[in-house]
Amino acid sequence: MKRTILGITAHADDHVMFAGTVMKLQKRGYQYCELVMTTSGEGRDFRDSKATNKTEKIAKYRKSELSAALKVLKCTNLYELHQEDQDLQYSKELMHQVMRIIRLEKPEIVFTMNTFDVHPDHCATAHIAREAIRWAAKNFRSEYGAPHRVTMPLYAEGTVPVDPHVLVDITDYYDVKEKLFKVYTSQATPRDLDLLKSTSLIRGYHLRKQEGVHAEAFTVEKNSLPILFE
Amino acid sequence: MKRTILGITAHADDHVMFAGTVMKLQKRGYQYCELVMTTSGEGRDFRDSKATNKTEKIAKYRKSELSAALKVLKCTNLYELHQEDQDLQYSKELMHQVMRIIRLEKPEIVFTMNTFDVHPDHCATAHIAREAIRWAAKNFRSEYGAPHRVTMPLYAEGTVPVDPHVLVDITDYYDVKEKLFKVYTSQATPRDLDLLKSTSLIRGYHLRKQEGVHAEAFTVEKNSLPILFE
Amino acid sequence: MKRTILGITAHADDHVMFAGTVMKLQKRGYQYCELVMTTSGEGRDFRDSKATNKTEKIAKYRKSELSAALKVLKCTNLYELHQEDQDLQYSKELMHQVMRIIRLEKPEIVFTMNTFDVHPDHCATAHIAREAIRWAAKNFRSEYGAPHRVTMPLYAEGTVPVDPHVLVDITDYYDVKEKLFKVYTSQATPRDLDLLKSTSLIRGYHLRKQEGVHAEAFTVEKNSLPILFE
Amino acid sequence: MKRTILGITAHADDHVMFAGTVMKLQKRGYQYCELVMTTSGEGRDFRDSKATNKTEKIAKYRKSELSAALKVLKCTNLYELHQEDQDLQYSKELMHQVMRIIRLEKPEIVFTMNTFDVHPDHCATAHIAREAIRWAAKNFRSEYGAPHRVTMPLYAEGTVPVDPHVLVDITDYYDVKEKLFKVYTSQATPRDLDLLKSTSLIRGYHLRKQEGVHAEAFTVEKNSLPILFE
Amino acid sequence: MKRTILGITAHADDHVMFAGTVMKLQKRGYQYCELVMTTSGEGRDFRDSKATNKTEKIAKYRKSELSAALKVLKCTNLYELHQEDQDLQYSKELMHQVMRIIRLEKPEIVFTMNTFDVHPDHCATAHIAREAIRWAAKNFRSEYGAPHRVTMPLYAEGTVPVDPHVLVDITDYYDVKEKLFKVYTSQATPRDLDLLKSTSLIRGYHLRKQEGVHAEAFTVEKNSLPILFE
Amino acid sequence: MKRTILGITAHADDHVMFAGTVMKLQKRGYQYCELVMTTSGEGRDFRDSKATNKTEKIAKYRKSELSAALKVLKCTNLYELHQEDQDLQYSKELMHQVMRIIRLEKPEIVFTMNTFDVHPDHCATAHIAREAIRWAAKNFRSEYGAPHRVTMPLYAEGTVPVDPHVLVDITDYYDVKEKLFKVYTSQATPRDLDLLKSTSLIRGYHLRKQEGVHAEAFTVEKNSLPILFE
Repeated sequence: MKRTILGITAHADDHVMFAGTVMKLQKRGYQYCELVMTTSGEGRDFRDSKATNKTEKIAKYRKSELSAALKVLKCTNLYELHQEDQDLQYSKELMHQVMRIIRLEKPEIVFTMNTFDVHPDHCATAHIAREAIRWAAKNFRSEYGAPHRVTMPLYAEGTVPVDPHVLVDITDYYDVKEKLFKVYTSQATPRDLDLLKSTSLIRGYHLRKQEGVHAEAFTVEKNSLPILFE
Repeated sequence: MKRTILGITAHADDHVMFAGTVMKLQKRGYQYCELVMTTSGEGRDFRDSKATNKTEKIAKYRKSELSAALKVLKCTNLYELHQEDQDLQYSKELMHQVMRIIRLEKPEIVFTMNTFDVHPDHCATAHIAREAIRWAAKNFRSEYGAPHRVTMPLYAEGTVPVDPHVLVDITDYYDVKEKLFKVYTSQATPRDLDLLKSTSLIRGYHLRKQEGVHAEAFTVEKNSLPILFE
Repeated sequence: MKRTILGITAHADDHVMFAGTVMKLQKRGYQYCELVMTTSGEGRDFRDSKATNKTEKIAKYRKSELSAALKVLKCTNLYELHQEDQDLQYSKELMHQVMRIIRLEKPEIVFTMNTFDVHPDHCATAHIAREAIRWAAKNFRSEYGAPHRVTMPLYAEGTVPVDPHVLVDITDYYDVKEKLFKVYTSQATPRDLDLLKSTSLIRGYHLRKQEGVHAEAFTVEKNSLPILFE
Repeated sequence: MKRTILGITAHADDHVMFAGTVMKLQKRGYQYCELVMTTSGEGRDFRDSKATNKTEKIAKYRKSELSAALKVLKCTNLYELHQEDQDLQYSKELMHQVMRIIRLEKPEIVFTMNTFDVHPDHCATAHIAREAIRWAAKNFRSEYGAPHRVTMPLYAEGTVPVDPHVLVDITDYYDVKEKLFKVYTSQATPRDLDLLKSTSLIRGYHLRKQEGVHAEAFTVEKNSLPILFE
Repeated sequence: MKRTILGITAHADDHVMFAGTVMKLQKRGYQYCELVMTTSGEGRDFRDSKATNKTEKIAKYRKSELSAALKVLKCTNLYELHQEDQDLQYSKELMHQVMRIIRLEKPEIVFTMNTFDVHPDHCATAHIAREAIRWAAKNFRSEYGAPHRVTMPLYAEGTVPVDPHVLVDITDYYDVKEKLFKVYTSQATPRDLDLLKSTSLIRGYHLRKQEGVHAEAFTVEKNSLPILFE
Repeated sequence: MKRTILGITAHADDHVMFAGTVMKLQKRGYQYCELVMTTSGEGRDFRDSKATNKTEKIAKYRKSELSAALKVLKCTNLYELHQEDQDLQYSKELMHQVMRIIRLEKPEIVFTMNTFDVHPDHCATAHIAREAIRWAAKNFRSEYGAPHRVTMPLYAEGTVPVDPHVLVDITDYYDVKEKLFKVYTSQATPRDLDLLKSTSLIRGYHLRKQEGVHAEAFTVEKNSLPILFE
């Protein structure tokens, strides 16, 4: 059986944060599927001129960007929960939905957003994912599938530096990561590209390797810690 | 070339904290070597009646326990820095000595003590190891060997629960871990054995697996974070 | 007048966390009453085979366990707020209800859950209790009773180790505590019993007494700190 | 046997921080003894005109203030370690000295400085005391006396507000506390008296009682937590 | 164009926390406007005997106090969001309303409540303000006005000491600050006045100046940090 | 009288961290002087081929780089404490030396290293500077000069992202900052330049301005907080 990675994100382009690691693992035979919480209707910092400022049009435009991007990222399954952008709130019901998808896809690795982020939807996504990952592993609600323990739940660094717990060397995948972000013409302004590259170079520096230059940084959450050496 | 684990500890019996993980990795072909910072002359909480309360005799007795234990743990190389027990302090000189041993042994994984521990020698050991691991990776002091980046520096939980960042399932190795501790007749009182087992069971619970019951917990330090998926 | 302890918990079996201390204080003449926030319909980690997986049946089954347990714990008054299990949220209304019960029972000591727990209902219970304890002490809403300052609000350690602020030696009461937990046949799997005992032994170790072996650990919250030496 | 309180301070006037609680407990039959780490030769923020700026003269002057103050505080035993003011450093030797005094006096309660203070000597005192309290309780170095567990080690708030863990109502003792501070004519400038009173009023407010107006605040350290309900 | 300060508060009298700094800046030509989130219907700790305990009457009474106080504070514009007192919750809609007022008033400096406060409405106000300040600066929702970056968003200390990041010397304005608070006859009990003065004196002490005696303390939030030396 | 900035650094090139802000303030009439703690004999991560690996030669080479750089930075006074590189330790004596220089130069603003850095000398420099800044403001040791309160003590971000408290927009000065760093041919490898630029771009992003692209980030220390609006 193929080993699976599940990305749990708030908005269309959020997977860029951990895309380098996804591509590195795909090389080793993992497949990637994704769960997006919102409609992405509010846009991010900088809107491309092609987008209008109407929420619905933004949502539609960003949905098409997402489709294009997921081809680049070779996503095998897309789940969407269609929550309102900028208004994502933790609820038992949403958490159960995410839990069911985890039990269905049985991912070995989950990448999601960071609870220390400044975007409220990112924090809410991390919160929902964190709870769903824990409950998915328990003898509970068997009608939603058999218990499944995600071995590696990792929370990706966003636009604000976190105090990371692990690094992944993505030097060989950085160019494709940047290319992936450029698919998001509504989001990838020069400033955003600077941020993407700078974050990756700083974490590359922290690899403290002679040759590695680009890295992605992740934190962990106590609810379900990564299990090493399985 | 054999892949190497280096344990950096304060006292003779400290390796018990991470011994389960060492044995798990030895099964996969890693070899284990160890660096002990002090003479272990002060003893730990509870002294066995066979030991006297003279510092030198304790040191001698514990040295013999260490030798016996290192056979159980199949240690290939022992380094000793002979610092005074309960008086370990960070110094540039000690840190350089540890750095040189790291560059010599080139370990992929280092296990050491925790900076949040309540024993001052444990904290000092973690401090020295943390600095040495970072400097060992840099283009610096080539007379002490070529730069070497430890991929996985992990800081083991001691007698006080930490907020861990990663877990290792040691269910299959717990019995040997306990047996190893019992070699330390001067230390392994019933109360200490209770602590050993309880810590391991609580972390086993946190594995949140259906079958795993014993685990070891580790924290990381920002100086040189673990690099995943190498 | 009898001095009163109030337990504020999320689910039927949560009082086990602090039951040792309750029994110790009952010996000194305190009486115990309890407030349970939810219906306990979702079950906990491991369900006993006697329970079904239907939420209502679980709730009913656990209610009967609670009744049996409260007899063991000699509870003089039970308050239930019947909130949905796994969906407890802070609200002004719930907080006012708890505040009114505090003003009615006038407890000197309150034991409740911990805000650092991984179960969302436990965190919500701690949140509601913490606010209610503070507001109960103020000159506010006299229609809900006269102001009452709880002298000792203590937040009990759950399934994840906290950084505790105070310990209570329960060596003489541990056996009854374990017996109490075993009343919960739907919850007390071998693994849960291991967790109960291990937590108690680790905190017993932290007593750092020659003879104490079992302890319960508590944290405090800045909203209304414990007042010593009254 | 009389129950004993031990104060462990850096400088002559530091006991004022917790003097209200000492006097409250003396009313209940406790006796008070004190251990001062330094010679107090550097003075504190504001020197009285009667003092010169020569270190030795300051030390002598402050020593006489201390003697007068300890009469007010009814101190039964004074220990002095004569360390250089503003240069106190943790050392194994100093820690052992403090440990021996703890084993000799067998205090039930220890009051000392706070590790979060801004004065380096206060932090060093807290560090030394914290370690000494832990080691004093262990089966270790029986030549320094039998193990003794301090039941209540409490770390007093200094000139910077801490996040306290417990409060003590000293409303009935505040006036004597202020009088005690005024014995220190070299230190008690109007500004310092303002600080003393303000700190006490703010913590009095946090008592959240109808009638209490003055309080002292304390933190705890994980090395040896306070044990409640002994 | 006049430079503007915007105060964002939960209740009628909350602006007293930062009023000293407002008055200091008004002397330099800034104008002050204010946004109050709730109806203030629940009262604060201690109600004046002139107030009844009916929520509506309290709200009305406090509204009249607010009007009088805003004259003292020379407020040029008052915005009210009429949320229920003690029940303020973050929502996208409320945050958008605050964001629009920020874009309309274009304040250089914003003073608001503290996220570490013990009053839930204060925390919610800080939360809403923090988000609104960040989103106001972004290229987003141009229908709500042009992007505006608040240069100095500062979060005022409340009834619990915070770990502040900056201080402001208000020695010359303290008397007026106290006078302003006394306008709130329903709130300004002797105890509250003690708290006001004590907080201001402690922070004055932390100025560590020879002559300053009163200060206000503020924290910052990572979402939009203060920009110095503009 | 000219307003003064004092830089307190560990090594020759450390001033680059805050050089953009220095240059911005020099435009407004501030003068800059500097205090360097060590001989810089150990080099930093990456040594230029022109440097040998002998400590003395490195120290000499770096000293000449420093001289050249200080011309670019228009430094009016250089103080050197000649401590051994990689071995800087806090001591009362060193702290008093720094205190005396502060009282002599009377800086309004001090820039120094960060206590959260991973380089031990940077942490020690921050520690010494933090204490010296506090003591310099007190009525203490008048033989070392009159008390002087640094209004703005700011701790610069190093090679590891901190949680900053304030930002400074250095967009107009970034090019000169980079040019300054390139004077350090022994240190400014491509990787280090990447780090410099990336850090500056990320903090520029956090300015959340429409036009600013480069920024420097600073933290504060509670010992002597920045005073705003003087």
